[in-house]
Amino acid sequence: MHSPGLILPNRAFMSDNMAGSSPEVTKAILVAATGHSPPYGNDDFTKRAHQKLQNIFERDVDIFPVSTGTAANCLGLAALLPPWGSILCHQDSHINNDECGAPEALTGGAKLVVVQGKGNKIDPEALKVAVQHKRGDVHSVQPAVLSISQATESGSVYTVDEIRELSQIAKAAGMRVHMDGARFANALDHLNVTPAEMTWKAGVDVLSFGLTKNGAMTVDAIVSFDPQIASEIAFRRKRAGHLASKMRFHTAQIDALLTDGLWLRNARQANEMAARLGAGLASIPGPQLDAKPEANILFCHLSQKVTEGLLAEGYKFYHDRWGPGVVRFVTSFSHNASDIDELLEAIRRHYERTSTI
Amino acid sequence: MHSPGLILPNRAFMSDNMAGSSPEVTKAILVAATGHSPPYGNDDFTKRAHQKLQNIFERDVDIFPVSTGTAANCLGLAALLPPWGSILCHQDSHINNDECGAPEALTGGAKLVVVQGKGNKIDPEALKVAVQHKRGDVHSVQPAVLSISQATESGSVYTVDEIRELSQIAKAAGMRVHMDGARFANALDHLNVTPAEMTWKAGVDVLSFGLTKNGAMTVDAIVSFDPQIASEIAFRRKRAGHLASKMRFHTAQIDALLTDGLWLRNARQANEMAARLGAGLASIPGPQLDAKPEANILFCHLSQKVTEGLLAEGYKFYHDRWGPGVVRFVTSFSHNASDIDELLEAIRRHYERTSTI
Amino acid sequence: MHSPGLILPNRAFMSDNMAGSSPEVTKAILVAATGHSPPYGNDDFTKRAHQKLQNIFERDVDIFPVSTGTAANCLGLAALLPPWGSILCHQDSHINNDECGAPEALTGGAKLVVVQGKGNKIDPEALKVAVQHKRGDVHSVQPAVLSISQATESGSVYTVDEIRELSQIAKAAGMRVHMDGARFANALDHLNVTPAEMTWKAGVDVLSFGLTKNGAMTVDAIVSFDPQIASEIAFRRKRAGHLASKMRFHTAQIDALLTDGLWLRNARQANEMAARLGAGLASIPGPQLDAKPEANILFCHLSQKVTEGLLAEGYKFYHDRWGPGVVRFVTSFSHNASDIDELLEAIRRHYERTSTI
Amino acid sequence: MHSPGLILPNRAFMSDNMAGSSPEVTKAILVAATGHSPPYGNDDFTKRAHQKLQNIFERDVDIFPVSTGTAANCLGLAALLPPWGSILCHQDSHINNDECGAPEALTGGAKLVVVQGKGNKIDPEALKVAVQHKRGDVHSVQPAVLSISQATESGSVYTVDEIRELSQIAKAAGMRVHMDGARFANALDHLNVTPAEMTWKAGVDVLSFGLTKNGAMTVDAIVSFDPQIASEIAFRRKRAGHLASKMRFHTAQIDALLTDGLWLRNARQANEMAARLGAGLASIPGPQLDAKPEANILFCHLSQKVTEGLLAEGYKFYHDRWGPGVVRFVTSFSHNASDIDELLEAIRRHYERTSTI
Repeated sequence: MHSPGLILPNRAFMSDNMAGSSPEVTKAILVAATGHSPPYGNDDFTKRAHQKLQNIFERDVDIFPVSTGTAANCLGLAALLPPWGSILCHQDSHINNDECGAPEALTGGAKLVVVQGKGNKIDPEALKVAVQHKRGDVHSVQPAVLSISQATESGSVYTVDEIRELSQIAKAAGMRVHMDGARFANALDHLNVTPAEMTWKAGVDVLSFGLTKNGAMTVDAIVSFDPQIASEIAFRRKRAGHLASKMRFHTAQIDALLTDGLWLRNARQANEMAARLGAGLASIPGPQLDAKPEANILFCHLSQKVTEGLLAEGYKFYHDRWGPGVVRFVTSFSHNASDIDELLEAIRRHYERTSTI
Repeated sequence: MHSPGLILPNRAFMSDNMAGSSPEVTKAILVAATGHSPPYGNDDFTKRAHQKLQNIFERDVDIFPVSTGTAANCLGLAALLPPWGSILCHQDSHINNDECGAPEALTGGAKLVVVQGKGNKIDPEALKVAVQHKRGDVHSVQPAVLSISQATESGSVYTVDEIRELSQIAKAAGMRVHMDGARFANALDHLNVTPAEMTWKAGVDVLSFGLTKNGAMTVDAIVSFDPQIASEIAFRRKRAGHLASKMRFHTAQIDALLTDGLWLRNARQANEMAARLGAGLASIPGPQLDAKPEANILFCHLSQKVTEGLLAEGYKFYHDRWGPGVVRFVTSFSHNASDIDELLEAIRRHYERTSTI
Repeated sequence: MHSPGLILPNRAFMSDNMAGSSPEVTKAILVAATGHSPPYGNDDFTKRAHQKLQNIFERDVDIFPVSTGTAANCLGLAALLPPWGSILCHQDSHINNDECGAPEALTGGAKLVVVQGKGNKIDPEALKVAVQHKRGDVHSVQPAVLSISQATESGSVYTVDEIRELSQIAKAAGMRVHMDGARFANALDHLNVTPAEMTWKAGVDVLSFGLTKNGAMTVDAIVSFDPQIASEIAFRRKRAGHLASKMRFHTAQIDALLTDGLWLRNARQANEMAARLGAGLASIPGPQLDAKPEANILFCHLSQKVTEGLLAEGYKFYHDRWGPGVVRFVTSFSHNASDIDELLEAIRRHYERTSTI
Repeated sequence: MHSPGLILPNRAFMSDNMAGSSPEVTKAILVAATGHSPPYGNDDFTKRAHQKLQNIFERDVDIFPVSTGTAANCLGLAALLPPWGSILCHQDSHINNDECGAPEALTGGAKLVVVQGKGNKIDPEALKVAVQHKRGDVHSVQPAVLSISQATESGSVYTVDEIRELSQIAKAAGMRVHMDGARFANALDHLNVTPAEMTWKAGVDVLSFGLTKNGAMTVDAIVSFDPQIASEIAFRRKRAGHLASKMRFHTAQIDALLTDGLWLRNARQANEMAARLGAGLASIPGPQLDAKPEANILFCHLSQKVTEGLLAEGYKFYHDRWGPGVVRFVTSFSHNASDIDELLEAIRRHYERTSTI
């Protein structure tokens, strides 16, 4: 039985931020709410979350919980470059399209410079050119940070080798490497590698560790592998109004997700549901799958009548934003096999109905 | 029984941000967690919170939940002035001392200009001078916003007449008025007036509506009484990384606090506990009360040995930050009479012990 | 006879900023230097320059002299948009490539969004799409200003009809129009229209009125056709450190250039020299003219040996920055026919020599 | 014979920026105007100016000419601190009062924190407290730069020992030291020490080297004694629109002033005129000298009728800005003894006239 205003999971494929939180996360919040605690992160929940992240990454890291992925991205980026630096990113990256200029705002006016590449992934050859563009020329912004999304906004995933290659190109040019990991766990699950392998061992300096889409409520975290910039991030976070006084309500969520691999199970569930959806679509005459989903995002082409039919039944998803007929489905930890099967059945039904008219 | 890492309320007087959340708030979060919902505030929790705020303020308002009071203050201020404007505030205000330059950062470099006044309250005569300072002179920042804290950082409270007088001085000079209401409910309880009387009817354009200290977990809200600037605040909030995707976890807290007057009951409890502490201290030989508390903050002078004695027993509070011997106690909704009496008893005991040595 | 360190005009084709100043400008500086004067623009030189600009534009305008074209562009742009606005400009525009992120810096973090078009000119159809991109979507920067370069960085010139069409598209979308007129006079000479026709009558709100390349020493001016933003530009100029105390040394230059049409004669001379160079190149076997020059910039392809030969003789020009073999020649008021003929002769000579080897 | 719009020096005591330029400077501009030259400082004038500055400072320095003192101050400051740093300065400093928030704007939102002291000079004991204020506290801006004005805005001059003492306090706290030398040469003349002694040998990291008030037209220079920050200043200068294309028109002025000690002769003349004025005032019954002038600024109290009498005769000076009856006279290189004697005679005359009524 649902609260008024909530939607059933089996209709909600707009984004993985439509989901609520994992029960374990909810329970952790409940516990954190009962007593008093020192503010601003000087509490035991924060210590535990920090320790668990260090275990996961197999090294010392600095961690800065914030309330959105945009804040995590932009504060992390700001610590990696001067205002006259440029951030090399993909045309279709979140920082370039979906943050309303927050990177420009929080870096003091740095410039985003687009590097091309197929499947939402930056092409190494294009990057080699970009990192040298007008280097040392005072009339031009200076390539300073490479930012890659893992997984990407289209649901593709860089291999560890690909990350390492891009990082090496950036590092050889004196640049730093940032990873937008809004769907970090989904990428990890797809690759079946360790967090360390996919980040600092491959050259990543600062990671936006995505939690909200992965079962948390309102928290993402900046994870820094460079101890030199920890104090800078701390001050930048405060100046952006992201140092929560009751920090434990952020870190209790992190603590819960990192306990007993919940975060990875959640990601696996989301990925498997996308794979199930992809496989199902391939078996239906009509829908056209744009790419086999590697994480929990799936792009396909549906006919207009089918799209309309799904919407009329209360299905929520984005369509026709990326081109006519293009439909995006995003799965999350909260979906289960029957939700997916029901959606597939609806698509099949609408195709049959509209093809026979 | 408490979770490891949590502190008992009866020892925690460092700040009202040490408390957890009201049980009703916790329960609301629990409900919000169970289903799916449209992101970014297009959900029913947000609609309900908005509607309740409008009822409370007896008019249409715009509401922008954010995760900290610093964000609420600085994004609200930014919408009220150009970068070459100045913010007139008290020397001891939170924006001037405790936000690490966030006002300067989020306004694009506006300048805070201090106006004097006793008891942490801006003096009208001083304000009259300040609002005319170098007006129209291109070499100087231009007085643009008056910011007042209600209640103030020392626990004093402006009367409605005082707010109106200051606002009129500012408005007559073409300026806007901002209220930092981190302890808005506490001030309201003290004055026993309506929210409308204490804000827009007295000239306030934008309010930082404090919730975190009043029983919420991690949410404060910008409340705008000027529909002209709503869209500006919306874009500024996004650019600062404060537009939460799972917004309902913010607004479910607001909704719960505003239901059946919980927010006011919480404030009353906090205020009464401060008053009880004040009255108790007055009856003990030794402690010196700096001012009768009007809200939930109490400043007093304790002897060094007494302070040390309390700390040794696990009491948490700030001392010697505002001068030698100065001790600050902050009460919250989570304290009850026996917590206060126990603290008073401890103070009495330490004074007796140290005076007899 | 030249001062040590100066180069003869007949070898200098790197940019029109290699030239000195028109003798009339130099003389005006000399006069301005002899007495005292009120600072910050409250002087008679500034009044005269302002009046002459108003005569030229056939209406009231506001004028803000600054020391560089970058300052003129970016302060003018900043007054036309909020930080969350976007500036639609051509990929090859100066603001996008040659100002080291000054637009981002001085606007408080606005974003430059590229609109395609041939010959360095924005395509109206592409603009129609761009002005509607994610309008009203809080996740995206909002199209706010169209910036066009007149003449463009490749030496092409928009017709008045083209400017009007682009402006109308922008205005219909609620946007403002900015013109980067670093080579304003050159464009005017090419089109043979009035300054009013090419600017405010065609929809331009703010103009960077280029003077340095046109015979001044170190001054360009923001010309605003919108009296509403005059005070904003004044404060922004001061905050960027561009309000000169001895302003008359800026405005004496402007006054001199605007006297008796000197600015237009200078532009005509520069344009004619580029045309002469273009015609000459067409008559030489070997060089390939990229486009017939409309203003005072000419792009062509030369063989590597010819380029090397010219460089060895002390010729200064940019080459191989825009692609292999691409050579740019820029003429100015200070070049005369024999300078051009001498250059043509050298090119012809090097082609003959290298073809016979 | 003067140009229309210019004022005779003997009436102009408003500021040293009312003067024109030294004849040698004017002549240098004339020479620079005649030929072509590489842009952006890659010219021989700039090389010579750089070399002369290095000779004067007895070491390698980096030099960045800009068009105003505000630009010199704020770009220099920006290179010395992060946005969350604070600039400790005197209440009456130019950066705090007369730059319209340019320091906040160009540093990315740093905060100016006032340190008290008599005679416009920062008090060492007050500085010792200020440099430790909330150090390491993430809720507070961090003391990062000490900025001192030499000479100060009231015409007083720090001794070398005083500069060294203040610098040592700042350096011991990990801070950097900035000197606003808008009237650097005047201070130097007063102290009769070397430029090196008054700057880097005493702990100064970056100097705003004032030239405009000292006989130049429109140029001041950032001089950096820290090679580590040269590239940062270069990029910041470009982004603020202060990298002049025809740089030689800036550096030809510097070159001329630094040739054969012209800059020091100009400062001496200005200082001697202020001293002459001070001595003369002391001999007249009525005027009250606020302090013996150490540089070229003199504050005194005149009766209202005398002030009005002088204004009626066309004298230009500031009055009643710093309190009722307070009059400021500023002398410059362009004043001579008879100008001063004439002013003194006028004051004497007005006092006699008004006292006999």
